[in-house]
Amino acid sequence: MNLPAFTFRLPAWVDVFLNHQPAVYSTIEDRMRLVVDLARKNIANESGGPFGAAVFDASGTLITPGVNLVITANCSVLHAEITAMVMAQKILGRYDISDGGRMNFELVSSSEPCAMCFGAIPWSGVRRLVCGARAEDAEAVGFDEGPKPADWVRALTDRGIEVTRDVLRSEAVSVLKDYAAGGGLIYNAGQPLVP
Amino acid sequence: MNLPAFTFRLPAWVDVFLNHQPAVYSTIEDRMRLVVDLARKNIANESGGPFGAAVFDASGTLITPGVNLVITANCSVLHAEITAMVMAQKILGRYDISDGGRMNFELVSSSEPCAMCFGAIPWSGVRRLVCGARAEDAEAVGFDEGPKPADWVRALTDRGIEVTRDVLRSEAVSVLKDYAAGGGLIYNAGQPLVP
Repeated sequence: MNLPAFTFRLPAWVDVFLNHQPAVYSTIEDRMRLVVDLARKNIANESGGPFGAAVFDASGTLITPGVNLVITANCSVLHAEITAMVMAQKILGRYDISDGGRMNFELVSSSEPCAMCFGAIPWSGVRRLVCGARAEDAEAVGFDEGPKPADWVRALTDRGIEVTRDVLRSEAVSVLKDYAAGGGLIYNAGQPLVP
Repeated sequence: MNLPAFTFRLPAWVDVFLNHQPAVYSTIEDRMRLVVDLARKNIANESGGPFGAAVFDASGTLITPGVNLVITANCSVLHAEITAMVMAQKILGRYDISDGGRMNFELVSSSEPCAMCFGAIPWSGVRRLVCGARAEDAEAVGFDEGPKPADWVRALTDRGIEVTRDVLRSEAVSVLKDYAAGGGLIYNAGQPLVP
């Protein structure tokens, strides 16, 4: 058996886009605006679904962006949040970016996490989650959020992960709606593609 | 910003080990024995935590193995199940290995899935999950299984994913116990390493 390597990288447009952006994002709205822009550009560049995320340190410095790469990387795991968390671990050189609870990093996502990303967040060492669109906003355009516990926010806060919701929600929702209106693929496993 | 690529591959010992194994695993016990062996060899080779998994097609042919690579790949996402699902998608060339519900693939895991892997399973296109050790067996040696819904088996079966538990459970548990007894690292994010 000759097993292949698996590799992914963020699309080339991400580097180009970031060259025109600041390095530090002082407010929570600044950070959300970046990830909503990433989601919108991910559609325009046809590099994945309408979801963006990023990891920031406690000073608001961008560690890494992330975008949804499911279709282009042929990998169901590469939601925007996972892409950002994996890349942050790669850049920082540790699988627990909190370094045993000593460091505060924040994951900002244009939509609330699905069941997988919710489960992945505690393992990453992220200490704060900031969300734009709600899960029901993603579901309203056809995306499946998976079997996430009803009390998912409490499940994270109980583990010391602060959750902030509805940051620039309407801007985040408009990206989802524009994606669906533009005929973007709704890729739910086990079902035919829509449209 | 110059963003790196992320790459992982299964350890070299996996290929060598599989060269001495059959290509087809007819019974559910045969398939579980393989993933328990993978878990045990992952400890012996110091390539990751005490967890093995594999994806098989409907005839019992091995598509790919997976082992836990969290520490060696510096990536909290690379649990054995995720490694196997990502590798299967890479090998089969599609992010939904069921190909829209037309194909039946099985994920066999030496332990029940954590919250992240549970959430990832529906997105992968896997149609059947087979588990050895129970979540409480992994917890008994110190691993955190995460905030998984109490009715996780039903959540999967409701989505058309069959779940079979306790296959060679005692053999699977013995690997976990041997890992802990041997001083293997228990890596839970946000906490100091144990021991």
